[in-house]
Amino acid sequence: MRAAIGRAGSIVCGDIPDLRPGPGQVLVRTCACGICGSDLHALQFPQTLARVYEQAGVEHPMRADADVVFGHEFSAEILDYGPETQRRLKPGTLVTSVPRLFDPTGAHVIGYSNDFPGGYAERMLLTEALLLEVPNGLPAEHAALTEPFAVGEHAVASAALDGAGAALVVGCGPVGLAVIAALKARGFGPVIAADFAPGRRVLAERLGADVVVDPTHVSPHARWADYGVPQTRAGRARAMAQGARPGHAVVFECVGVPGVLQGIAESVPAGSRIVVVGVCMQTDRFEPSTAIAKELDFRFVLGYSAEEFAHTLGNIAEGRIDAAPILTGRVGLSGVADAFAALATPGDQAKIVVEPGRA
Amino acid sequence: MRAAIGRAGSIVCGDIPDLRPGPGQVLVRTCACGICGSDLHALQFPQTLARVYEQAGVEHPMRADADVVFGHEFSAEILDYGPETQRRLKPGTLVTSVPRLFDPTGAHVIGYSNDFPGGYAERMLLTEALLLEVPNGLPAEHAALTEPFAVGEHAVASAALDGAGAALVVGCGPVGLAVIAALKARGFGPVIAADFAPGRRVLAERLGADVVVDPTHVSPHARWADYGVPQTRAGRARAMAQGARPGHAVVFECVGVPGVLQGIAESVPAGSRIVVVGVCMQTDRFEPSTAIAKELDFRFVLGYSAEEFAHTLGNIAEGRIDAAPILTGRVGLSGVADAFAALATPGDQAKIVVEPGRA
Repeated sequence: MRAAIGRAGSIVCGDIPDLRPGPGQVLVRTCACGICGSDLHALQFPQTLARVYEQAGVEHPMRADADVVFGHEFSAEILDYGPETQRRLKPGTLVTSVPRLFDPTGAHVIGYSNDFPGGYAERMLLTEALLLEVPNGLPAEHAALTEPFAVGEHAVASAALDGAGAALVVGCGPVGLAVIAALKARGFGPVIAADFAPGRRVLAERLGADVVVDPTHVSPHARWADYGVPQTRAGRARAMAQGARPGHAVVFECVGVPGVLQGIAESVPAGSRIVVVGVCMQTDRFEPSTAIAKELDFRFVLGYSAEEFAHTLGNIAEGRIDAAPILTGRVGLSGVADAFAALATPGDQAKIVVEPGRA
Repeated sequence: MRAAIGRAGSIVCGDIPDLRPGPGQVLVRTCACGICGSDLHALQFPQTLARVYEQAGVEHPMRADADVVFGHEFSAEILDYGPETQRRLKPGTLVTSVPRLFDPTGAHVIGYSNDFPGGYAERMLLTEALLLEVPNGLPAEHAALTEPFAVGEHAVASAALDGAGAALVVGCGPVGLAVIAALKARGFGPVIAADFAPGRRVLAERLGADVVVDPTHVSPHARWADYGVPQTRAGRARAMAQGARPGHAVVFECVGVPGVLQGIAESVPAGSRIVVVGVCMQTDRFEPSTAIAKELDFRFVLGYSAEEFAHTLGNIAEGRIDAAPILTGRVGLSGVADAFAALATPGDQAKIVVEPGRA
C-alpha cells in the first residue's frame, strides 16, 4: 500500500508492506489525518523526540535511523478484524482513537513508531478496545481533529480555572486554537488571544476568543486590571484588605520557542498560573528571580487522557467546538512533503489534513 | 545608637541616628536577629534585589547607593509608643512581627530599607498593628526565628500536599530546614532530606526528616517507588489500570543556584510538583522538553502571609517546631561582618543570630 514515509529527514512517497490485524487489533482504511507540528519536529530532530519519549517512559520509542510513517490525528473506516475481537462495530463504521496500538510486546505510539504505520498511509492497525465510533454524521476530516482539540482540553483541565479572572492564550496555531475552543466549550471567559499572524487572529475569533490582540501594537497583558486581576502582590494584598476577592491570571503558552516563558514571566501579574502547552525542543534561559518575585506557577502539560479524548469528540460532534475553521488545507499522500514545508514557516496555515484516498 | 551597617558591599559597625516613633509606630530594643542568606545576596547584588522588589510591586525598594541596616528576622522588647497607638502591650513585652513598617508615605520593608534600620541595630521602629506577643516564655533568640520558619510554612502551604506520596527537600540550609519543620509540624511524612554537608544532614534529622540522604553516594530520587510513586507517566497509567491510586512526588528546591532545577526535572518522577523556595539570583538554563515529557509543575514561592507568620510563632512556642537546633552561632554587632563571611561558604552553619545587646 501507499504511504508518505519519513526517511532520513525527508518525506518520500512509496510502498510499504500490507497489514494484517493481530489479536485485539482492527484493520482500517485511513480517511483523514492531520499534520501536527510535532511531526515536523520529529522529522528534523528525531533524537530529541526519542529523549522526550524516554523521559515520559514510553515503550518502543521511535528510532532515528529507521523509516517512520507519521500521523496520529486520524479518522478511519473499519475494514476487518483480527482474532480475539468483539466486532461490535460493523465494517464501514467511521471511527477515531487515541493513537496507541497494543501487541504482545506492549504499547506502540501510532504515528511515532518504526513498526506500525500512522495515518499518512492508506491503511492502519488500531486497537479495538480504544475505538470510538464517530457520532452524528460528523465528517471524517473533522473527526480526525479530535486529537489536536483534546490537547487543548487537557491543558485547560490542568489549569484549574477556579478563581481565574481571565485567560490569555499566547500563540494561535493549532495548539492555541484548541485551548481557546476548550475554554469556550466549558463557557469560560473572558478569553484573550494573542498572535502576530493576522490569519491566526481571525481563526482565534472564529473559535470564540473574546478579545484578540496583535502583540506588535498592544501588549496582551495591558488589560488584566480590566478583568479584576491586580498586577502586583502588593496590589493584590491591598485589594484583599479592602474586602475584594481579586482573580488571578491564567496564561496558556502555545508557542514553544526559547525566550517565550521568560517574556511571559516578565509581563504577567503576580500569582499567575502559566500552563505550558507549546513544545519547545531547545534549551531555554530564564531568570528564576522573576518567577520568585511574582510567585508564578508553571504547569507543563503533554497529551491528554482517554476520557479527555472521548469528551472532545463529543464536544465536536455536538457543536460545542466548531472544528471547521482550523482546517486550512487538504492534501493527498503526494502532497505531504509540500505540506510539511508550508507548515515549517508560521503563517496563516493552521491544520492541513492528509487524505490518503485523494488522488 | 550602634548598628552593623551595609555600605558599598561591606558590613561596617558605626553609629546611626536615634529613632522616634511616628503615628502607629513602636520603638523597640532589638533582642535577637537572624542573618538571612538574602542579606548576603543583597549586600553583594543590590541591583538584583531591587529588580525583584520592583517585580513584586514593593513600595520604597532598597537603593544600591545608600546605607542599609539589614535584619528582618527579629524579636524585640517594647520601649515606647508613638502617637495614635493603642498601647495594649506593656513596655518590656517581648514581641516579633512581620518586617513591615508603615508611615505616611506607605510600607517599608524592615531590613531592606534605606530609611529605617533593621535588626542589626540596637533599636528599631515597628508597626503596632503588626506586633505579636511572644508567648510561653519562648527565648528571644527562638522567637526571632519565626520569620525563617514562616518561609517553610508558606512553601508547604503552597505545595498542596493532598495526594503526595512523599516529600523530598533538596538542600538543608535554613530554608530547607524550615520546610522540613513545617512538614513535620503538620504530621506529614515521609520526608526525605538531601544535603552534601554532614552537619546539615544532622540538623535535618533533628528537625524530623524521616530519611536523610547524602547525594554524593545515593540519589535522593532512588526510593520514590518505595513510597508508592511511579517513576513514569506510563507506570502511573499501568498502576491506575490495576486499581491503585499512586501518589505523586513533591520536591522542595531549597538550594537556589543555577542548574538545580534542571537536575531535579531530570530526576523526579513524572507528575511531580516542584516548589521552588531557594532564591536563585542568576540566569538559569533548562530543557523545557524534560518538564513537558513528565508534566512537571513548578511553583515559585516567596515570603509568607501574616497568618502563616502568626501560625509559625504558635508552632514554635507550643513545641510543634523545635527552633533550637538551627541556631548554630551568636554574635554581637561587631561580629556581623565575620558572620556574613562564614555564611558565604556553605558548611555546617545554619542560622547565626545577632544580639545587638551583646558585648
